[in-house]
Amino acid sequence: MRRDRGDGDAVGDLVGRARDGDPRAVARLISLVEDESPLLRLVTAALAPHTGHARIVGITGSPGVGKSTSTAALVGQLRAAGRRVGVLAVDPSSPFSGGALLGDRVRMQDHALDREVYIRSMASRGHLGGLAWSTPQAIRVLDAAGCDVILIETVGVGQSEVEIAGLADTTLVLLAPGMGDGIQAAKAGILEIGDVYVINKADRDGADTLRRELRSMLALAERAEGDWRPPILKTVASTNDGLDAVATEIDRHHDWLESSGELAVRRTRRARDEIEAIALTALRARWGDVHGRSELDDLAQQVAAGESDPYAAAETLLAEL
Amino acid sequence: MRRDRGDGDAVGDLVGRARDGDPRAVARLISLVEDESPLLRLVTAALAPHTGHARIVGITGSPGVGKSTSTAALVGQLRAAGRRVGVLAVDPSSPFSGGALLGDRVRMQDHALDREVYIRSMASRGHLGGLAWSTPQAIRVLDAAGCDVILIETVGVGQSEVEIAGLADTTLVLLAPGMGDGIQAAKAGILEIGDVYVINKADRDGADTLRRELRSMLALAERAEGDWRPPILKTVASTNDGLDAVATEIDRHHDWLESSGELAVRRTRRARDEIEAIALTALRARWGDVHGRSELDDLAQQVAAGESDPYAAAETLLAEL
Repeated sequence: MRRDRGDGDAVGDLVGRARDGDPRAVARLISLVEDESPLLRLVTAALAPHTGHARIVGITGSPGVGKSTSTAALVGQLRAAGRRVGVLAVDPSSPFSGGALLGDRVRMQDHALDREVYIRSMASRGHLGGLAWSTPQAIRVLDAAGCDVILIETVGVGQSEVEIAGLADTTLVLLAPGMGDGIQAAKAGILEIGDVYVINKADRDGADTLRRELRSMLALAERAEGDWRPPILKTVASTNDGLDAVATEIDRHHDWLESSGELAVRRTRRARDEIEAIALTALRARWGDVHGRSELDDLAQQVAAGESDPYAAAETLLAEL
Repeated sequence: MRRDRGDGDAVGDLVGRARDGDPRAVARLISLVEDESPLLRLVTAALAPHTGHARIVGITGSPGVGKSTSTAALVGQLRAAGRRVGVLAVDPSSPFSGGALLGDRVRMQDHALDREVYIRSMASRGHLGGLAWSTPQAIRVLDAAGCDVILIETVGVGQSEVEIAGLADTTLVLLAPGMGDGIQAAKAGILEIGDVYVINKADRDGADTLRRELRSMLALAERAEGDWRPPILKTVASTNDGLDAVATEIDRHHDWLESSGELAVRRTRRARDEIEAIALTALRARWGDVHGRSELDDLAQQVAAGESDPYAAAETLLAEL
């Protein structure tokens, strides 16, 4: 779609204001990408030259481990060090979006008037793939807006944890003692994605047992010389205890990412997934996945009826590109 | 890839023998599709005209509910009714495949010499998408080989349950009392995919409580007039108790699928997913996802470096098709 000059100027102006730290410009840009605006293409192009600075930190863990409190405390820690912070609170199951904060985010309100902190809730609405689609775009906005660190917090249900890990440079996995289930309930997936493990509510009984269990499970993973070895930290986020060490480990992990070359690998992989997702969405639109009845539907009916086979149908589809 | 006449004849002969009930021909065809043989394309085309007869039944549930025993008992029930049965035991985490039966499948051995029963274990090895890739192909073989009913049993870990439900006409969800967790542990996903719920080990304490809990959870789902209402059955698979009712409900569900038009909808959707998966795999191969360094990698590096944006990169990729 060709856009007139005016759209390009308006987008350029918005990006400029976002880079100056105007929270309304940031909000508007995120809405444009989240709502799959026709301007999305222009916005993404205007942001690109200003991206690549931010450290992207995913925060995940089961419900009840204190993710919101920990995120708020970590924001305080990062602000005390003078860093500009972006927070994306991602709830894949929520129909709400557009910056509304969750009810229990009282502590996050401490940062609500700080212009160097941008907080945004995101839901996975939209038909183009939800979380996987809109979160990288919102990260791009916050990165271009000069955030030094972007925290992505997920409500941590199922698949979203793994998706978050795919988007982040550094993934924090939170656990807590006294959840009634211990380490057993922590899905195996969680034990593969963590770069830093945090046992929150460490003033409760069972914190040391949990740490021991976690340590022996992590010891099972094969790691080569020079590989990152995920540390296990203890915090009490509600009183800020231990958050300084969390911030330090995030920086230490980032240094390792840079010196090992892994940062470039992760970011290239992420860009690759994003490019492919965009290309496939465009193809699906051509085949009619978005716009209803189509060539693909006709072919599927023929295959279901035994009149064709899936390979022949796929060849027909590809021949039309 | 162009094949000579000889390959086509050999495949046609194999398909003919499979349709006559030769278990070695069935085994060979499944190996060809599972191993992504160069003949895959020919095999799929030769099978197509003979597919669409079999009723495809998925069997899922947490480890320990008695899936293997229930599957074996259901095979007995279907054989007593004179039906030809195929069984695919799918273990997405297993590196083993090729017909090896799991150690605890003693009861399934009862059927090992019955030529009207074909039993096959499948693993999700292979680089083209594992379970989602090879299981539909194996179903196609068993369908063309004249199976009246194909049972797909999964070990039931995570995502595989939902995948199985996507492949089946009718999905059986198994539960059992005394698993220590009750219905709470049954992931919400399981409660959405069941067409027939079976409480196995129903001679144990807690079966009625479990049924009550399950019934109230299922009652929360909104169903319109004419929608299928999943029944909840009780079985003791180890003594065959209640298996006749399970077979009856599978048939009743199939009748509903046919009369409501839902069978055609499900099978067309399945064909559509399969066509799209094949087409996307072909595209990924062109972009280098399979064959290493490529155009897509170069574009991803430019995006990661802020020299390009993902939309521009996706357009470049698509322009080359």
